[in-house]
Amino acid sequence: MDFNSFLTSLGTSFVLFLVLMFLFTWLSRRPGNHVLYYPNRILRGMDPYEGLRASRNPFAWIREALVSTEADVIRMSGVDSAVYFVFLTTVLGILVLSGLVLLPVLLPVAATARGVMKANDTTSEGSFNDLDKLSMGHVEQRSARLWAFVIATYWVSFVTYCLLWKAYKHVSDLRAAALMSPDVKNEQFAVVVRDIPPAPEGQTIKEQVDSYFKAIYPDTFYRSMVVTDNKQVNKIYEELEGYRKKLTRAEAIYAESKAAGNPEGTRPTTKTGFLGLIGKKVDAIEYYDEKIKELIPKLVAEQRVTLKDRQQSAAIIFFNNRVTAAAASQSLHDTMVDTWTVSDAPEPHQLLWANLPKNFYTRRIRQYVIYFIVFLTIFFYMIPIGFISALTTLDNLKKLLPFLKPVVDQATIKTVLEAYLPQLALIIFLALLPKFLLFLSKAEGIASESHAQRAASGKYFYFSVLNVFIGVTIGNTLFTALKRIEKDPNSLVPLLAESLPGSATFFLTFVALKFFVGYGLELSRIVPLIIFHLKKKYLCKTEAEVKEAWAPGDLGYATRIPADMLILTIVICYSVIAPLIIPFGIIYYGLGWIVLRNQVLKVYVPSYESYGRIWPHIYLRIMASLILYQATMLGYFSAKEFIYTPVLIPLIVLSFIFVLVCRNKFYRFFQCTALEVASRELKETPNMQVVFRSFIPPSLSSEKADEDQFEDALSHVV
Amino acid sequence: MDFNSFLTSLGTSFVLFLVLMFLFTWLSRRPGNHVLYYPNRILRGMDPYEGLRASRNPFAWIREALVSTEADVIRMSGVDSAVYFVFLTTVLGILVLSGLVLLPVLLPVAATARGVMKANDTTSEGSFNDLDKLSMGHVEQRSARLWAFVIATYWVSFVTYCLLWKAYKHVSDLRAAALMSPDVKNEQFAVVVRDIPPAPEGQTIKEQVDSYFKAIYPDTFYRSMVVTDNKQVNKIYEELEGYRKKLTRAEAIYAESKAAGNPEGTRPTTKTGFLGLIGKKVDAIEYYDEKIKELIPKLVAEQRVTLKDRQQSAAIIFFNNRVTAAAASQSLHDTMVDTWTVSDAPEPHQLLWANLPKNFYTRRIRQYVIYFIVFLTIFFYMIPIGFISALTTLDNLKKLLPFLKPVVDQATIKTVLEAYLPQLALIIFLALLPKFLLFLSKAEGIASESHAQRAASGKYFYFSVLNVFIGVTIGNTLFTALKRIEKDPNSLVPLLAESLPGSATFFLTFVALKFFVGYGLELSRIVPLIIFHLKKKYLCKTEAEVKEAWAPGDLGYATRIPADMLILTIVICYSVIAPLIIPFGIIYYGLGWIVLRNQVLKVYVPSYESYGRIWPHIYLRIMASLILYQATMLGYFSAKEFIYTPVLIPLIVLSFIFVLVCRNKFYRFFQCTALEVASRELKETPNMQVVFRSFIPPSLSSEKADEDQFEDALSHVV
Repeated sequence: MDFNSFLTSLGTSFVLFLVLMFLFTWLSRRPGNHVLYYPNRILRGMDPYEGLRASRNPFAWIREALVSTEADVIRMSGVDSAVYFVFLTTVLGILVLSGLVLLPVLLPVAATARGVMKANDTTSEGSFNDLDKLSMGHVEQRSARLWAFVIATYWVSFVTYCLLWKAYKHVSDLRAAALMSPDVKNEQFAVVVRDIPPAPEGQTIKEQVDSYFKAIYPDTFYRSMVVTDNKQVNKIYEELEGYRKKLTRAEAIYAESKAAGNPEGTRPTTKTGFLGLIGKKVDAIEYYDEKIKELIPKLVAEQRVTLKDRQQSAAIIFFNNRVTAAAASQSLHDTMVDTWTVSDAPEPHQLLWANLPKNFYTRRIRQYVIYFIVFLTIFFYMIPIGFISALTTLDNLKKLLPFLKPVVDQATIKTVLEAYLPQLALIIFLALLPKFLLFLSKAEGIASESHAQRAASGKYFYFSVLNVFIGVTIGNTLFTALKRIEKDPNSLVPLLAESLPGSATFFLTFVALKFFVGYGLELSRIVPLIIFHLKKKYLCKTEAEVKEAWAPGDLGYATRIPADMLILTIVICYSVIAPLIIPFGIIYYGLGWIVLRNQVLKVYVPSYESYGRIWPHIYLRIMASLILYQATMLGYFSAKEFIYTPVLIPLIVLSFIFVLVCRNKFYRFFQCTALEVASRELKETPNMQVVFRSFIPPSLSSEKADEDQFEDALSHVV
Repeated sequence: MDFNSFLTSLGTSFVLFLVLMFLFTWLSRRPGNHVLYYPNRILRGMDPYEGLRASRNPFAWIREALVSTEADVIRMSGVDSAVYFVFLTTVLGILVLSGLVLLPVLLPVAATARGVMKANDTTSEGSFNDLDKLSMGHVEQRSARLWAFVIATYWVSFVTYCLLWKAYKHVSDLRAAALMSPDVKNEQFAVVVRDIPPAPEGQTIKEQVDSYFKAIYPDTFYRSMVVTDNKQVNKIYEELEGYRKKLTRAEAIYAESKAAGNPEGTRPTTKTGFLGLIGKKVDAIEYYDEKIKELIPKLVAEQRVTLKDRQQSAAIIFFNNRVTAAAASQSLHDTMVDTWTVSDAPEPHQLLWANLPKNFYTRRIRQYVIYFIVFLTIFFYMIPIGFISALTTLDNLKKLLPFLKPVVDQATIKTVLEAYLPQLALIIFLALLPKFLLFLSKAEGIASESHAQRAASGKYFYFSVLNVFIGVTIGNTLFTALKRIEKDPNSLVPLLAESLPGSATFFLTFVALKFFVGYGLELSRIVPLIIFHLKKKYLCKTEAEVKEAWAPGDLGYATRIPADMLILTIVICYSVIAPLIIPFGIIYYGLGWIVLRNQVLKVYVPSYESYGRIWPHIYLRIMASLILYQATMLGYFSAKEFIYTPVLIPLIVLSFIFVLVCRNKFYRFFQCTALEVASRELKETPNMQVVFRSFIPPSLSSEKADEDQFEDALSHVV
């Protein structure tokens, strides 16, 4: 890619971004779209225009995002979102501080070097360009100028250490503040116990659990809720809910037909067979009504059977104070670690019930099996990506698909295509994976949704770095370098180091595309908007259906964080080699901060709260990027035959020490709740009845607040 | 060494053992020696002859050892001793079961092989011997007979897994039974808290600690005892105790002189200067009396100052029930892991007070520094051992010290010297190290004596295995193999595998010497007996001094276990290569079991109780030996050019899985107390006052039970 196509790519991206931003300003003012641009506010019963009414400035949202505080974010979107912004701020800080030193120092040093670029050091076919002159590749081998780059490597590392340390402390405080809040949070009074051994003869699991915990916590044990196998009851419940929805829909259609001039109305009909498409034609309202009446007693009966006979080897234990629950979740209860495993309870709605009864060793084995599958996935995908990045050059395309030639040879189309083709392929490719990884993470037997999301996020990160960053970099010179790797697999780092400068412009474009188009689409919400209006017009009949159509979802950490991380890895690895990438990184994170601040305050609704548990994952992966960067630099300096290269080794050692110290100091508080935090006073005495009921899954909760029927598996009043 | 000198060595060792055993039978019957042969019984106020009076059989002690139960051991010597016997029994089981299969199968297979021994495969100068014919070295390369040895390797491993699994379960039960005992054990009501942050302005550390824990445990917190810097007060206390001892001694001398005919008696005198050797001559009793009177108020004043002004950043917290203490010791208290670090309290008398205030990071750094020192020690000692084992062959000695030639050339002397020389050098050499390792372990900042002993034991094990086993084996062919290691350090395992058969007879002799002479000396207690009688005759004047002279000490795990482990490592590594070593191992562990059963029941007094915490250390080191054995076998089969050698690789993988599973299932209960165990009912309500006072160090406890003066640092009545 030459300098021209790079500028074109940048320009078109920017124009696209501007268009999308003005589209957003225009669309978000139309009241019919409020549910799409302010759903978080609407769901919290707030005025969508709050604070905005005064100004009609199209950039008002930017001002609003900038003046919003961390407390606003926590109030509107929880601690996890606030932690995500700490991440953005920290990376932004790292990049700005790095840029302030690296740009004014390294660019002149590189530009004034004699220059040693070889033909194969650039992505395009042998044509040097102005960007390459500003990179470390332009400095001759063994030059004393390389000292400036060594110092820069140290500077970036130290800036990262300092800011990460501050951020870890800050997040720790955020988590503590949220956990010590005087509001009653149901999950703080419960623990999950798994691997309950088979109950002795003549005892139900519930009785066993109750007597076990009452003996240990005579004063603080409240009740237990044994986990049941809900497959059957869930099926009936879903069937019932389905008919209820259909009934509401049929009634809405009937009401509509009445309103549409026909005072009698047309009673909607349905067929009793498969999907309402075959079978006898009946009156829909009557039919659904009848079905519902039929299913309710069936559900109640099934609930009874489930609670009595389908008790599993897991339970939720409730305590009447937070300190006991916090201490219990951290303590060994049985002499064998693989029985009566206790851990802290997540929020009720994010408990993965089906995973709870999974056995200790089953969980371990599943984990290893899934790590192996992920490993295969990562390395299996490497081959197609290598091919794609090699195939999607225009010249190759023309060779493979000759009929494209007349189109492609036009100058403008050629430039645009040349700029976008490889990156687009990459981005589409990456969209396929997250669901699969989340599915795998849940299959590990993890107890909570948030934990599964974190696990998926981690897997996706390793996938991105290995496949996109390393894969593309090496794949770029893959056909020349393939034999070398085969001969000696250890040559990955030096090979990566040598290949890096060649891919610099590719990644510059990639980052630019990501931030302009990505954040443009994010802000304007064009796709959800179109889908919503289509659904509303042609599908939705009831209030509930409309509401479902605009439900905004959450921030999607499982894909968002790995994507941000990939950018960070790219930018940090190139920061010294091609410092020009730093401003792009700054724009990515700065723009991301503003756009997402808007989205978090107004659009996304968090689907769970893990009190910042995502942070250690983020932190560790930032450090992984930093260490990859340091190793790459070590390899690159060697490739430059710089004899003082070993001065970089202490840096890598330092990184590992830093990881160790942070882990020692901070990590355990993110695994469990510190007792000091849990011991803070509550605003009011918790209503244990409410706490308890919040954990009953919807399919098992009865319509009436009649409790007796839950006596079997759920409860035992002390 | 040829077969003759081996038999001589064995024979003389056996005779020595018989002599020592009869010496024991004879000496232990003389009432004057009872304090040496039955101290544990005497200190527990039991009749030394209990159960023995009926029989006058000289082997009665063997019968008594054999019929004693595990419960007897626990009653007389605690859980730790019982765990030590589980270790002996388990290893004995492993060796017996291995021997039952390996001896009848492998010996004929090896003996009937064609034979391929080369000159350098034996320790002696090219002369083959009968022992070597019975070893795997005698089987030709690539022979199908090697399959028998492969199966044997698997058999030994599986026997080890099974017995270790059973043993781990059994020890876990022993620990649980001891911890759930209905007797009040003071340490179960306390936790140690370290890394207390600096107290806020206007608060003492004690006030800070009290308010912190009272907030978290409003109902169960009893009192706190802040750790003080006791250097000054200890000095005065020791001075005072010294004068008290001297006073008793002077009074005893005076009484003796009166009894010896002189009705007036001679009042002993002393000098006031250095060590009572120079200075003014004074009446001793008056002088000491005066000194004591002088020191008592000084001590009281110093106690006050210490408790008030020398409070350190650590404390002991007391709870009024066991469950809270157990849960507290496992829970994170502060959001920062490096402050308010809580761990369970060891027995009061084994707390290492001076280590408690050491800072979190100081402890970590000390640990790493000490690991490095130990690493250096292990590898620094390797050189001298290599030299010793190369120098102390008779031929070398004759060359180096020609004047010895006439003595050494006599046939009997030559045989004896040849048998003992290398082994004796080794045994003396090993006696130097344990104290140093214990000192290092304490310097790590460990909180309890038992933990320090465990740490020292672990270090000593690695030292023994690396230096004695590997060092001697390779050192044996060191001068031929030195260049090879230099070229390729990875060649250690194949080199070791090749060198093993050559050292087989050396180690056979080593094991035999260890069990016959070692256990003979252990049983007969000749050395302590002589020292005791000398001390009693010439030094001891008072009752207390006599008692001190016969104090038996404890089992000495820090050196005993590594020594046993070394034998196990040797025997297990040779079990398949030279199966003849197995009977020697069986005798070592069988004899050890009987002799030590006697010693534990009658002689040694445990100096602490860690409730079996030593077991995971023992277990892990048995597994380390097993893995070393498997790796060695892998190397040895390769050296035999056996093409199916890789069938041994799954075995090593299996060992690692076994370690992992055991760790997951059992280990945590050895780190902390399971709540279920701690929740068992007590025989009586604990007297918290007594529990509290048991932790006051002697130098700080006052004569009168007056408490008010402890208010400052120790106590705060709730």
